[in-house]
This record gives sequence, structure tokens and C-alpha cells, in this order.
Amino acid sequence: MNSSVKAFMFDVYGTLFDVHSVKEKCDELYPGKGEEISFLWRQKQLEYAFLRQMMGRYDTFINITRDSLKYALNTFKLEYSKENEQSLMAAYKNLSYYPEVENVLTQLRHKKLAVFSNGSRDMLETLIHNSGLSSLFDEMISVDDVKQYKPTPASYGYALHILGLEREEVLFLSSNGWDIAGAKNFGFKTAWINRNNLPMEELSLEPDRVYPDINGIVEWR
Amino acid sequence: MNSSVKAFMFDVYGTLFDVHSVKEKCDELYPGKGEEISFLWRQKQLEYAFLRQMMGRYDTFINITRDSLKYALNTFKLEYSKENEQSLMAAYKNLSYYPEVENVLTQLRHKKLAVFSNGSRDMLETLIHNSGLSSLFDEMISVDDVKQYKPTPASYGYALHILGLEREEVLFLSSNGWDIAGAKNFGFKTAWINRNNLPMEELSLEPDRVYPDINGIVEWR
Repeated sequence: MNSSVKAFMFDVYGTLFDVHSVKEKCDELYPGKGEEISFLWRQKQLEYAFLRQMMGRYDTFINITRDSLKYALNTFKLEYSKENEQSLMAAYKNLSYYPEVENVLTQLRHKKLAVFSNGSRDMLETLIHNSGLSSLFDEMISVDDVKQYKPTPASYGYALHILGLEREEVLFLSSNGWDIAGAKNFGFKTAWINRNNLPMEELSLEPDRVYPDINGIVEWR
Repeated sequence: MNSSVKAFMFDVYGTLFDVHSVKEKCDELYPGKGEEISFLWRQKQLEYAFLRQMMGRYDTFINITRDSLKYALNTFKLEYSKENEQSLMAAYKNLSYYPEVENVLTQLRHKKLAVFSNGSRDMLETLIHNSGLSSLFDEMISVDDVKQYKPTPASYGYALHILGLEREEVLFLSSNGWDIAGAKNFGFKTAWINRNNLPMEELSLEPDRVYPDINGIVEWR
């Protein structure tokens, strides 16, 4: 349908990869608490990235992920140990991709394919390598290269620079409504992968398309 | 103790004023749902301010507060109506101040006293006026004057400009850990009013003091 799209750029955590196994690991280490720990952990992980961006105090996502885990465990008065931290951080490097991902990516191979994440380069490369999908991507782009977190225009601008295209030639996909809003604000074409049937974010920046999983994007090939 | 402090500057919502009555109003309009609505509402209110800051799409806190309410109601599949919106927004203008506030402010009257909030000027002035405390404050400062939200350095910098002092002559107080981190990052002296006994934010910016309520700050007079 949309031959004007020359690149598909994917967010990673929650979009291509299911972070459910992080929750399972939390529950294994802190029985019965997995759901609430992983929920608060994720919320503070985003919040710390946003706060550091606004304060001009960039730190890597791997450090932020550790800091937010610590906060979450403190909130529930649970013991923080180096072993548990390492075990939980390791879970982030061995996530499963969603079932439709490999098939969809294979169908889009004639276009440029990229991942673009707030994750640190080491987290990202290890994950993609471990998944066996790395040969399908032309670019693995981390905000860590410019130390500007999504959803700043500077972060999407850096990704565009790496792709070497025009804004409107890029279809950006994310399961995070805030990320889709940021990409739309920057000028990318956007598709919100609404895997959890959430309401639209009230930011006056509607995505071009909404799909329940990434199968829908083959109409842009 | 600390005669070098020439101004006390207070955050407003949750620091001087108890937002509990907003929760009560939520519960009145949506019985049994007040707690979860008001929690998500607050979370999205902050998130939308942060996201708009990062995207360079400033909107007033009053509009953001409306947008985040809408999102919260959509999440719980509850009906959004103009009447309910107005009733909930009105609750923000008639909050009670915490019991110790008037006495503490009166003891600090020989120094400069100011409020500094992400709230829009109209929200802020109406609230302070309705509370009867307005004669105690030398300045009511809203980020809306510069359209830069806390915790950006630009927002605290504007407040400092209004006070006409040096950074280290200002003691900033907030119940929000992220706000205290931002103020510390900027260079203010900081006291975190930890009313809810929360863990310290893991942002490598510790406050100078932590108090359970604002009574403790009289040691800085």
C-alpha cells in the first residue's frame, strides 16, 4: 500500500519483545510480589529516564534500570541483594519475542529494518543477538549514542540521521503510547501496537494507525 | 540556625495542601473507584507534564489535569461528562492546607515566603486566595510564566529570578521526591517533606534535610 515508507523502525521492550519473563523472575525471587514489583519497576524506570532528561543528568538505561529496581524493592520493604539484582537484570537480556515477529520481519526484508530503543547499547545488542533475530535488522540504534532519551525530538532526530532518510519515509512502531506521541511529534509516520488494549494517550498526537500486534504493518510494505 | 537562608519556597499540591479531597470527590462521583482514579489521574498528570516538556509541546497544567482525568476515566471505562469534570476540577481549587502550615508560616514571616508550582497561575491564585493564606506569601510563582515545567533547571531558575537572591539563599520544600531532586540539581538548599514515609528517590541527589511535615523547617528560620 505505502511504497513511500522506506524504513520500518521498531521500539524493543514491549513492542518486539515480551517483558513478561521479567515479571516471572520477580515472582520467583519475591513470591507473590512479582506483579507489583515489575509494575512499579517499569514505572520508575521510565520516570527516572524522563526526570534525568529534564534535569540534564543523563545516565545509561542500564544504570536507571538498576536504580528503579532498588526503589521498587525499597517501596515494598523487600531485601535488595546483588545476586537478585544480577538475576533480574539478566532476565532483560533473554526476553522472548512475540510470536508474529519473525514472520512479519521476514515479509518486510526488502525495506530497511531497524530497532530504536532507550535501552543502553550493551542491553540492546545482547538481547537482539540472543534472540537470533539480528540478521534481520539493518540498524540497532540506542539513544545512548547521543544521550538523549525518547521522546525528545533530538533522540528521534539521531535515529533518522542513522537511517539517512526523510522523516515521512519512516514508519515507527511502538507499544508505548508516549513513544508514539514523541515520534509523531517529530514527524515520523507512526503505528501504535496496542497489545494491551489501552486507551489512547491524551496528548493531542494521534498515531497514523493502531494495530493489536505487528501483523497489521505488512499493509505498509 | 541557618541565617544564610533568606527565602523559603514551597511546592503546593501535597506539600502545603492536602489533595485528599480530590480523592473524596472522585469517590463521590464514581463510588468505590476514588482511590484508583485519583492515583492514576495524578500519575498521568505528572507524566503528561514531563512528556510535553520533553517534546517541546508545553500546555498549561489546567489542560493537562483535564487530559489526564480523561485518560484515567477511559482506563477504568467510566463515563466522562463535562459536569463531572467541572466538579473534579473545582475540588483542586478548594483544598485544605495541612494542620501545621499556618503556624509554621507565621513563624517564618521575617524571611521571604513564596509558593512555586507546576500549577497554572489561575489554579494557584484561586487556591491560595480561597485558603486565606495569601497575605503570608510574598510571591506566588507559576511555571506557566515561562512555560518550563519542574524539574527543568529553567523552571527553578525563573523562580530564583523572581526572588532576586542567590541559589544557596533559598530553601525549597516539596513532598515530591522528583521535585526535590530537581531543586537540588539546580542548586537550592532542599528539604523533602516526606509525609507518606516513602523511600528516597534513586536519583543520586539527596536532599539536605528530610522532615515528616513542615514543622521541622523552623530550625532554618
